[in-house]
Formats: sequence, structure tokens, C-alpha cells
Amino acid sequence: MRINETVAKWRAGQQTVGAWLSLSNTHTAERLAHAGFDWLCVDLQHGLLDYQDLRHMLPAISTSDTTPFVRVSGNEANEIMKVLDAGAMGVIVPLVNTPEEALAAVSACRYPPEGGRSFGPIRAALYGGDDYATYANEEVACIAMIETKAGLENLDDIVSVPGLTGIFIGPADLGLALGLPPLGDSENPEHLAAVSKILDTCKRHEMPVGIYCSGLEFAKKRVAAGFDFVSLNNDSGFMMQAVAQDLAALRGGVPRNEKLTGY
Amino acid sequence: MRINETVAKWRAGQQTVGAWLSLSNTHTAERLAHAGFDWLCVDLQHGLLDYQDLRHMLPAISTSDTTPFVRVSGNEANEIMKVLDAGAMGVIVPLVNTPEEALAAVSACRYPPEGGRSFGPIRAALYGGDDYATYANEEVACIAMIETKAGLENLDDIVSVPGLTGIFIGPADLGLALGLPPLGDSENPEHLAAVSKILDTCKRHEMPVGIYCSGLEFAKKRVAAGFDFVSLNNDSGFMMQAVAQDLAALRGGVPRNEKLTGY
Amino acid sequence: MRINETVAKWRAGQQTVGAWLSLSNTHTAERLAHAGFDWLCVDLQHGLLDYQDLRHMLPAISTSDTTPFVRVSGNEANEIMKVLDAGAMGVIVPLVNTPEEALAAVSACRYPPEGGRSFGPIRAALYGGDDYATYANEEVACIAMIETKAGLENLDDIVSVPGLTGIFIGPADLGLALGLPPLGDSENPEHLAAVSKILDTCKRHEMPVGIYCSGLEFAKKRVAAGFDFVSLNNDSGFMMQAVAQDLAALRGGVPRNEKLTGY
Amino acid sequence: MRINETVAKWRAGQQTVGAWLSLSNTHTAERLAHAGFDWLCVDLQHGLLDYQDLRHMLPAISTSDTTPFVRVSGNEANEIMKVLDAGAMGVIVPLVNTPEEALAAVSACRYPPEGGRSFGPIRAALYGGDDYATYANEEVACIAMIETKAGLENLDDIVSVPGLTGIFIGPADLGLALGLPPLGDSENPEHLAAVSKILDTCKRHEMPVGIYCSGLEFAKKRVAAGFDFVSLNNDSGFMMQAVAQDLAALRGGVPRNEKLTGY
Amino acid sequence: MRINETVAKWRAGQQTVGAWLSLSNTHTAERLAHAGFDWLCVDLQHGLLDYQDLRHMLPAISTSDTTPFVRVSGNEANEIMKVLDAGAMGVIVPLVNTPEEALAAVSACRYPPEGGRSFGPIRAALYGGDDYATYANEEVACIAMIETKAGLENLDDIVSVPGLTGIFIGPADLGLALGLPPLGDSENPEHLAAVSKILDTCKRHEMPVGIYCSGLEFAKKRVAAGFDFVSLNNDSGFMMQAVAQDLAALRGGVPRNEKLTGY
Amino acid sequence: MRINETVAKWRAGQQTVGAWLSLSNTHTAERLAHAGFDWLCVDLQHGLLDYQDLRHMLPAISTSDTTPFVRVSGNEANEIMKVLDAGAMGVIVPLVNTPEEALAAVSACRYPPEGGRSFGPIRAALYGGDDYATYANEEVACIAMIETKAGLENLDDIVSVPGLTGIFIGPADLGLALGLPPLGDSENPEHLAAVSKILDTCKRHEMPVGIYCSGLEFAKKRVAAGFDFVSLNNDSGFMMQAVAQDLAALRGGVPRNEKLTGY
Repeated sequence: MRINETVAKWRAGQQTVGAWLSLSNTHTAERLAHAGFDWLCVDLQHGLLDYQDLRHMLPAISTSDTTPFVRVSGNEANEIMKVLDAGAMGVIVPLVNTPEEALAAVSACRYPPEGGRSFGPIRAALYGGDDYATYANEEVACIAMIETKAGLENLDDIVSVPGLTGIFIGPADLGLALGLPPLGDSENPEHLAAVSKILDTCKRHEMPVGIYCSGLEFAKKRVAAGFDFVSLNNDSGFMMQAVAQDLAALRGGVPRNEKLTGY
Repeated sequence: MRINETVAKWRAGQQTVGAWLSLSNTHTAERLAHAGFDWLCVDLQHGLLDYQDLRHMLPAISTSDTTPFVRVSGNEANEIMKVLDAGAMGVIVPLVNTPEEALAAVSACRYPPEGGRSFGPIRAALYGGDDYATYANEEVACIAMIETKAGLENLDDIVSVPGLTGIFIGPADLGLALGLPPLGDSENPEHLAAVSKILDTCKRHEMPVGIYCSGLEFAKKRVAAGFDFVSLNNDSGFMMQAVAQDLAALRGGVPRNEKLTGY
Repeated sequence: MRINETVAKWRAGQQTVGAWLSLSNTHTAERLAHAGFDWLCVDLQHGLLDYQDLRHMLPAISTSDTTPFVRVSGNEANEIMKVLDAGAMGVIVPLVNTPEEALAAVSACRYPPEGGRSFGPIRAALYGGDDYATYANEEVACIAMIETKAGLENLDDIVSVPGLTGIFIGPADLGLALGLPPLGDSENPEHLAAVSKILDTCKRHEMPVGIYCSGLEFAKKRVAAGFDFVSLNNDSGFMMQAVAQDLAALRGGVPRNEKLTGY
Repeated sequence: MRINETVAKWRAGQQTVGAWLSLSNTHTAERLAHAGFDWLCVDLQHGLLDYQDLRHMLPAISTSDTTPFVRVSGNEANEIMKVLDAGAMGVIVPLVNTPEEALAAVSACRYPPEGGRSFGPIRAALYGGDDYATYANEEVACIAMIETKAGLENLDDIVSVPGLTGIFIGPADLGLALGLPPLGDSENPEHLAAVSKILDTCKRHEMPVGIYCSGLEFAKKRVAAGFDFVSLNNDSGFMMQAVAQDLAALRGGVPRNEKLTGY
Repeated sequence: MRINETVAKWRAGQQTVGAWLSLSNTHTAERLAHAGFDWLCVDLQHGLLDYQDLRHMLPAISTSDTTPFVRVSGNEANEIMKVLDAGAMGVIVPLVNTPEEALAAVSACRYPPEGGRSFGPIRAALYGGDDYATYANEEVACIAMIETKAGLENLDDIVSVPGLTGIFIGPADLGLALGLPPLGDSENPEHLAAVSKILDTCKRHEMPVGIYCSGLEFAKKRVAAGFDFVSLNNDSGFMMQAVAQDLAALRGGVPRNEKLTGY
Repeated sequence: MRINETVAKWRAGQQTVGAWLSLSNTHTAERLAHAGFDWLCVDLQHGLLDYQDLRHMLPAISTSDTTPFVRVSGNEANEIMKVLDAGAMGVIVPLVNTPEEALAAVSACRYPPEGGRSFGPIRAALYGGDDYATYANEEVACIAMIETKAGLENLDDIVSVPGLTGIFIGPADLGLALGLPPLGDSENPEHLAAVSKILDTCKRHEMPVGIYCSGLEFAKKRVAAGFDFVSLNNDSGFMMQAVAQDLAALRGGVPRNEKLTGY
């Protein structure tokens, strides 16, 4: 079976960078797959995406050797199993609060006896290989998001769940969990402390740990802090960053509906 | 009927800036519609787009007052008429070689007796207003692209075609027409000379004239040169510009498959 | 092969009533197919529809024995042939100006030696039957629209084109052709005279003739006048007719943004 | 942030009328959004609709100031959160049986600490405004449907759940809950009594209350009874009402497959 | 209401054969519906399919009298109810472990008082008939899959659940449940014994019982063993079976990238 | 730029085998791309396919090194150019009658000065490589179909058109052109003679020549006859071949609606 190269890098102590896909589009998926990221994550939770999009976007990613992850909309076994059948090499599961919830997510990713995944890897075996049934339990990543108050409190127990592949921090929800605004890339000390605590706990457990970043500045900082995987931004975020910067530069500060003297 | 604000600006001597849509996606259309451009152009010629996309993307643009243009895949009356019925406020017609071809494009945009457009503005009247039939011939823009050898030779005659609203330069095809590579944003003197000649001819005829630009640098230059409308980039181009820049900065020059010491 | 029941009725001197489909939706197609119309016409010209919709909507119509027609976006052989391969039992071709154009439309509907249709009835033979190749030239309807100045002038010659199955009047374009506004259901004497002339010419040639109607009043009048086929309305028109009537009745004339005392 | 104008009207004592969207179609959504309704509700429960449709239909509604609601397929937090991220200004949650279930629905609509909604309003912030995070908990409506036996029994407790915005009656399921057939617009005394009881309870709690109506007659009656919000019909219902009425009038009672003497 | 002909055959002691649909495609659904199967099952669990596909594929099946079943992605009431509203004549529910779970599935298929299905058969009543509300509880099939360790242990109790229509064996998951590989069509004695035990239990309870087969050989064996319903293969499986056989025969064993001397 | 490996094989004297794609489905495209064919041809003429499908199916084919061809719906430059921009490595153009028509097809495939293709290879350059502009004129195949009476008469002149890459025979249309039924895989002597004449003419001109086959028997015969490229079947044809064979074997000749004693 195809190796999960991103997980292999984590286990070899290498750091990886990825991008988030929030747009239903086969071409942006294919284009970003060839841009140099280690992994891409199709976001079925907050992205404007659904299972149907995976049918086109996962093959588009498979034109490259970039690792395809999917963030599911929630911790539902049925959805996790469908996503894996479609060829995702791992799922990122939001809002994990307890070790029981983490175990449920792991179980949905593993064939019996390790878990309760139903067998029928319709595209996964085409992408992964004929021996998918034998190796899928090893290669498929199950990543739990820590981003709620309960998740923070139960962190040690969650990280100890057997079969879990990694931990991922959602910084905006983490902010809300701390009683702060939904801070993303933030220097807020309380927020930073919580991020550090999660990072340290994972390192202590030798559990790969990642965090969502929305731009270069924090991607650099999180890499420097030692995270195993960071996003650089999402598809739409990259686009709007360039739009905002270049359009402001072209207009020179003059709003759209006023005459541009500079023109 | 709703005024074609972009054309009104041209006629008032104002310069406008737009963006090109090449991706089949309702959300990128809506997002760019609120970003501050004067107009957006859905590209059915070289974009990965088809008529079907207009059904979702034109309403998304209509959540703003940004003017929706469509570049059709070719100078075909049936396609032009469908695009206008869907609510485009103007079409950009590629590869116009002769005044006869320009006249055919104009005819497809105008109801009799000015042209041969068939009546049935299914969404256009919803967007434009109940008096669409009365004013559409005035408000709908018909813009011819000059980008072939024949088009260059027949420029004066093309610009003189009654009912034509504007001229648009496709610089890559223009490069090919001049025996050069498909240059886009280019300082090639021969290319620049051809661009200037088109610009001057249009100015002499008081015909609004635009040109495709793929980034800030040339958008600025073309605005400074006096073009009435320039694109700043397309959706996918904006995205990949930010990706390339930020990913290189994050990786610090280390290719993906080597260990990053900097990390 | 399946009989074209609508054409059979025309030939038997019976009048038929149909509806126009302008919305991309499988369910409205299926629902209207069971509502009691003789035929439905999927409108690829002015409807918000494309070839792709036929793949879902023609099977939905085939859950009934209602005859499926398609109005193509223009008189293009490639499009006509694709539409017929998808299982349409006839095409309505807009803007036919000359007998040569009518002959071209007929040719696209007939296999050699009667015409130049290319063989590959991928869904048509599933719907029509295994002997589709043998009988398609007889059963498939080719209907030319008379709605332009040239079409009016050449009416006699167009009606005489061998292989043509019927004539259909587009009253809005006919209005424009007469130098009038795009009148649909109209009592304008000049318009009525033109409609009558077409009707009479067709009757003289024993050519089935239809006309587009947008509601009950004119559907009744056109039936009374002797038309072989009339539309009653289109999907969206039916919907908005009920909306307008019932919403006005509920609001009692009070606009939306004022307080309703009547409530 | 954009005000939820429909909720504002309820709080100001004004009655509102809306329509139900059951068809996957961008154009019907846009057209009904401009027809004069206060709100539209996209029905993911019984409509032939899914999350994917929201991506196109919510922007189409946003071309107007009509308030977009969505009825979710069930009381699932993941689905509610995705629907709100897509830009719905409120959800209608079917089959609420207990105050605990009502609380779960409310929690899915509110960011911490009021609830457990995850942060990522990808389109909602584009539609709602940059300060969406600050005001969403106030503006987003959470409406519980009372239509089961348990829901009736627990009505007082459900209406008392903090954060709930309104109550909506599904009359067909209510009929089944009462041991009656699935009555919609009904004068059945037992059914009417149950409807009145819900209405009265809500009024006593100053909780806005609505009911589904399938036509003008009952919409008028329910408005007269004092409901804060009523539907007039759904898209498909409007269409079929006009079809049935006009086709019967045209055919004069003669079935399709018999010769029409009246023609 | 339309009779569920497949269930009627089971009750009359007749055996039936069907096919599995795993591909999102209206045409393959329509084509297989006319191929001679008693039933087709659209697979929302392991197929590359989603609810949206039902909107097009169920009408395509309804061009024939083949019975349409749907395997849902899991035992979720909301999904089961949507699938039935779309016109499925029965659901196959995977991974049923206990009688409580079986009862929940049955409840989602039955209107009160027999169950908790919500009323709104938008397409089901169009397909089933105007009296759908009266007869749906009798005609709609609810079939539970036995394929887990718990399901095997609770088999007797599951089969005794009132309202359950049938049992279906998923042989691959059954293999995993027995500690074997995910065996499908298998002669493994332990696997065969488990299959026989389920078959016998169902026969004893007079409960119709089926099993998934992936080809002719085992379809024959399972029919001979007395199963009431077997699949012959799925759409994609049929296709790849012919491809593998014919391509090997044509290439004569020479791999693609070597020169074919036999050619 | 990526080499056109199929064309390279033809030029090296190797024979190739491909399959035809007629179904709108990303998964069947991906699956057949890994089945061992040299090339796949997406059929926009007689397949139930449109440009939109290419956006998903061409990337799916690009997960392998199978060469992607597209048969366009007709000899239209706009369509050919869009198809190539989407990443097809060649087009098959139906119904070519004259050298002028062949030249028009070639022109649409070649950038100036060799032809008139417009520049904008949005996906083609991602798939083909950054130097696409330099090498596309060499690598992109333009294949003309000979299948009409005129095409047969003008064969020598068509084959002599510079820039043409190959000739493809459509045997069904060829049958019609000869005054025969639409024969596909046929031993009809007149049909065979015409096929042989085309084959010989191409061989004399050293022009690669292919023919459509619908199954193993004729694929073998045509390979033995010396054709450079043959199809083995199409996606739907493979599927139905296995269905027909296995279902007949299972039923043992008993029709569906009779009791199966053999069961």
C-alpha cells in the first residue's frame, strides 16, 4: 500500500506544511497539489464543501504525491468512513472533548478488530493499492482537534488514546474556549499559553501536533515553536490576501466609487 | 433599467479596474464582487468555466453592484444571447478579425431592429429591471478583442463598427500575432508598439479600450498609459501569487522532499 | 420504436397542449410530466438550461408517456444531434430564416441518406427502442420557428422543405420582427395578422403549426384559432403567476416594509 | 452586522409571510427573493435539497434583503453549524421533543460561552459583516418545531429554553402526533385545538410563533389567528397550483388521451 | 399506492436478483433499470454517492418497474427519512448491532403511530401515488444488515423486531467480524458457517434474507442455498470484469509499456 | 513538456489500444485510466458528456500516464480550443468531409503561426508543463474522422493536410455513408472494403490510423489488420456486456416476471 508520507515525516522528526481547501473546485485542488505542500486538507467542516466534492478533488490531488487529508464536519463514524473510502489518507476530527470521543474517531478509522470501520474502500484501494485492507489501519491518520474547554481539560487522556495519529489545534475555537474572542493567529498571552501547553503535552507523549495558521507570519512562528504540521493558509485566504494587497496598491487608497485622480 | 455603471464611467472619462474569473465557484465570484473591483469578467473562453456556471456565479456577483461581464468562448450568436439572457451586462468577444465579425457580435447583443438578438431575458430582466426590453440595447456592452494579425490590420474598420462599446487587448495572443511568444505583461518593444497603436486608435475614435493584465506591475503601467479598463489578475492567479510567495518564504528555499533544517 | 405520440395526434387532426421547461431541475420535469400535458419542451435557448440538464430531465420525463421536445439554442447540427442522442423525440429550432436553414435543421435530424445525422443514439435507443436506427427518421420531429423578418418573407419556401415536421411561432421575436415591442400574448392587430398568416400558410400546406402562449387566456384563443400545439406556460411562469396572485391577496395591497394593519 | 429583519419585525409585533424552497434551483430562489416575501426557508428536511444547494441558493437570496432561513434535516449540531456558516440567518429545527433537544439546537447556533458553535463563518461573515463574531449570537434565529406527541407534552418547557428565538408548527406531523392523518391546512377540531394551544402558549411566553401553510386560504386564517410568521406555499406548490387550475380550464375536463371536441 | 413488487415476490416465495449502484450517474441507473433486475440498490454507504444523486437516479430507475432500494450511509433517522421522501421503496441499513438499533431503523421508516417518520413525501408520493400516506408503512421495506460481531450475537432478537422487512448480509464486514480478512464471495468454512446460520435463523423466522454477491459464481451458489435476494454485482464491478477479461485477451499477456509482437 | 506517449508509439510503429468514455463520472475515468489502456477518449459527441465533465475527468485520468484524448462534438474551433486548454493531449474530430475542414481542425489545435489557437492553457500547462507554449504544437494530436461519403471521396487530400496527426474511422457512420445500416463491428464486404481502403491510404501516407471497435472480437481483427489504434469498447459497453452475460446465466433463460424454478 501507498505510504502515508506525511505521517512518515512526522515520525522521522520532520516538519511539514500544508494548505486548507475550502472551495469546491477541482482545479484549485490540483493546482495546490502541485505547489509544493506536503499535504492538503479538504475542509468539510467550515469550508463550503461537502462529500460530493471529494469525488472530484481527491483524484485531482492524486495527480501529485501530496498527502490528502479531510477535516470532517463532525465526529460521526458514517462520515469518517465515507471520507476514507473516497481515498483520504487521514481525517482531522473537530471538537474532540473526551478520550471516549477520541476513541470513537479512531474506531471509525480502523477495521476490526482495532475498530469498527466498515469494509468497502471503493476509491481508497484504487489510490492506496490492492493490499489496502492489510495496511490501511497503519497508514490512515486519525487526528483529533483540541479546541474546546473540555478538550483542554482532558488533553492528557485524549493524547493517550491508542491509535490516535496526531493532535491539531483550532486556534479560533480555542480562543472562544478560553473566554476570548475567536482569535486565530494571536499573540494573546493566555492564548499562547494554552497553545504551548498543548504543544508540550503532545511532545511529552511523542504525539505529532499541528496548528492552523492563516498566513506566513504565524506559520513561521509555529514552525519555530516546534509544531509538526502547520497550514500556511487556505485557498480563499491566499486569493484574498493578494487581492487586498494589489488592489489597494493600484487604487492608492481611493475608494471605488470616487474618481481616481491617480489613474 | 439598471445602469451599466462601468460603461458609464468610461463615458465619463473614468478608469476602471476589474478581475477575471476562471474558476467554477460561486463563492469566489461573490467574494471578489465585494472586494472593490468595478467589474468582474467570467471567462468562458480560457477559464475552466461553462454556461452552467453563469447560473450560479452571476447571481453571486449581483449581491454587489459590481458590473458582470462575460468573455464568451467565441463569436457565436447563440452563446452570446444565452449569456446575456443569464444577466451579463456585457460580453467580451475574442479573436475579432474583421468589421463583419465585429458587426455580427454587435448584432447578437441588440434586439431588432438594431440587431438580431432573440427575446427571452429570463434572468436579465430580473436583474436589469422590468423595462429591460426598452433599454438593453443601450446598456449592454459589446466589447471586441483585438489580438490577431487580421484584427490588427482591420483595426480602424473594426473600431468604426456602430454599436460596439469597447475594445479589449489580449496581450498573449497579440504576441503570437506578431510572431513573438505568447507574451502577457511584456516590455517587448514590438509588443508595446502594437499595444500603443491599438490604444491610440481607440482614443482617436473615442472608443473605450482595455487590456488584460496579470498583476499589479502592469496594471499600474496600463492605467498610467491611459487604458479605460484593466484587469488586475484572475482568481487563480491571485491565489497562486500568494502561495508561491509565502511558501517560498516559509521553506526558505529548501525543496519539499528534503529535510528542512530551518524548521 | 416508440411512437411519437404528439406528432401522431397532429397527423390525426388532434390539438395538443404542452409546457415549457426553463428551470434546471429534475423534479419539476418529472412533476410536469405527470400533470397531463401532451408534451414538454426543455428550452436550451432562453431557459436557464444547458445540455447537461437533459441528462437528468429527459429520463425524468420518461417516467411518463409525455413527449419530450427540446428547443435548441440555435440551428447548429452538433447541438441538435447531441440533443437527439440524449432522447429528445424532437427539436424546436429557433430563428429559421430561409429554406436552406430549415433544410440544415432537418438534415441534422435525419440519418443518411435523408440527412447527415451521425449515428450514436446512446440514450435515444434505450428510450426509443432497439430499432431506433430504422425508425428514427420517421418519428423524430424537426420543428422550425418562424419569428424573424426573413422567416416571414420566406415562409412558403420554408414550409415546403421536405422532412420538416412542424412550424412554431415565437410571438415575442415576431413582434420585434414587425417593428413592434417583443409582444407575447398580444391582440395587436399587426401582430395578430402575422400570426394568422403563418397559421393559414401552414394549414394550406397541411403542416402542423404551434405557438408559444404564456397563460390560459391566449392558450385558449390559440386553440380556438386552430393551432395544433400550444404551450400553456413555462415552469417558472406558472410558479410566479400563483405567487403574485396569492401574495397580493394575502398582503391586501400593503407593501412588504410597512406594517400590515390588516394582519 | 446585518440585522435579522424578520426577527426584528416579530419583536416589533409585526407579522411576516414567507415561502418554502423545496427545489434545487438558484433561479427560483432568486426570483422568489424578489417577489415580496419577508423571508424564505430552504428546506433540507423534506425538500429535494442538500447542503450543496445552499452554496448557490443563499447568495441568490442575498441579491435581495429577504431573510434567508434554512430548515435542517434534523437536530444535528454539525449540520446546523455548516448551514449557518453558509450564511443562513436562522435555522428551523424539526421534531424537537424536549427542552434538552431544544437546548442542543440553541447551543449549535451560539458561539461560546452561550453555546458550542465552532468558529468559521466562511460565507456568513461576508454576508453578515466583519463584526459577525460579535453579533451572530444575537442575530441568528434558532426556531424549534413542535410537531410530535412529546413536543406537545413538553411545550411549556421547550418554550422556556433560553436563547430560543421562535416556535414553528408542522401541521402534517402534528396531525400524525394526534393520531389523525397527516393533515396540513385543516379545520379538524382536534387539530385546530392543538394549534391554538401552541399559539396561546407561545403568546403567553412572548415567543414568536409560526406555522406552515400550503396556500392562501389558511395563510389568511393563520395570520388572522395571530401567528407571527406563516408560509404562503412552497415553490413547487405554487407551480402545481397554477398548472392544475389552468390545465383543467384549458382542457375543459377532457382527459389527455381523448380527443378534445372543445378544442 | 404502487406495490413493492420485490417484497411481494419474497412473500410469495420467489427469489429475486438485483444490482448495486455505486456510481453517480443517471444513465447507468436507467440502463441497469432496463436490464432485467428485480431491484437496484443505490449505495450511499460505500458507493461514491450522496443524497444529491438520488434526485436524478431514482427518477431514472422509475422509467422502469424495477424496485428502487437505497443503502443508507448509516443508521440515522434523518438520512433514512430523506431517502424515503426521494422515492426509495426501501432502505438497507448497515451495521445493525442490536434489536434497539433495528427498531430505530424501523421507526424511521414508519409514520406514527408505528414509528416516528416525519411527513413530507415530496417525490415519494409522485412515484408511489396519492394514497402514499395510507400505505407507505406497509410497502416501504426496512432491511437490516447483519455483519458485525454484535449483530451476529443478537441475531435472534434483531430478526424478531416487529416491522422489519428483511435481513441482508454484508460478507466482507462479516469476515472482519469473525476475525478473518474482509472476505466477500468466500468458501472459508467459518465464513460459510456464519452465513448459513444467518440464513437458517431468518428462514426459521420467515424473514426474507439476502446477501451481497460480487459475481455470477456466488450469486448462483447463494440462490441455490435459498437466499431470497442476491446482488449479481455492482455497476463498476460489471464494467471492470469485462475490461479485465477483454484487455488481457487482446494484449495476450504483454504489459502496456512493452512492444506487442502479437499485434 | 510531457511527451504524447501514444503518438510516440504510433511513430515508433507500435500499436495501441484504448477505451471510450461516454459516462459523466470521475471514478470510471480514474479506474479505466489505471486498467492498462494506452489512451482514453472522452466522447463529447455521442457520449452523455459535456465540457464540464472534462474539468473532473481529465484530472482523474492524469493520476495515471494514460494519454487523454477527447472527441469533440463537432469541428468547431471554440470547442477544440477549450478542450485543449483543459488538458486533452489530442482531439478526435468527427465528420471531416474535406481537406479544408481538416485544415480548420488542425488550425484550432496549433498556436500561430501554424494555426489560430488562442493562448490560455489554464490546465494544459499544469498538466503538460511550463514549456507548454513551446511544444504544444508538436505534442497535441489532431485526428480527423473519416466516416462520410464526402470524407471517403476526399480521403487522399485530407490525409495530405499538413499538421494532421492521425485518421480515425467511425464504422457506424461509414455504414450509413455507404448506403448500409449503421454497422459497427461488421464483416459486410462493402464495409470491409471501405475500411481497408482507408487503412491502405493511411499506410501509404504513413499516417497513423485507428478505428472504433465495440468488443474484443473486432479489436483483435483490426489490430491484426494493422491499425495503429483501436478502442476495445466504451465504459457503458463494458458494463452492459458483463450484465447481459451474467444475468442471462443466472436466470437461465427465465424472464424476470416469471417464477424461477431453477432458483
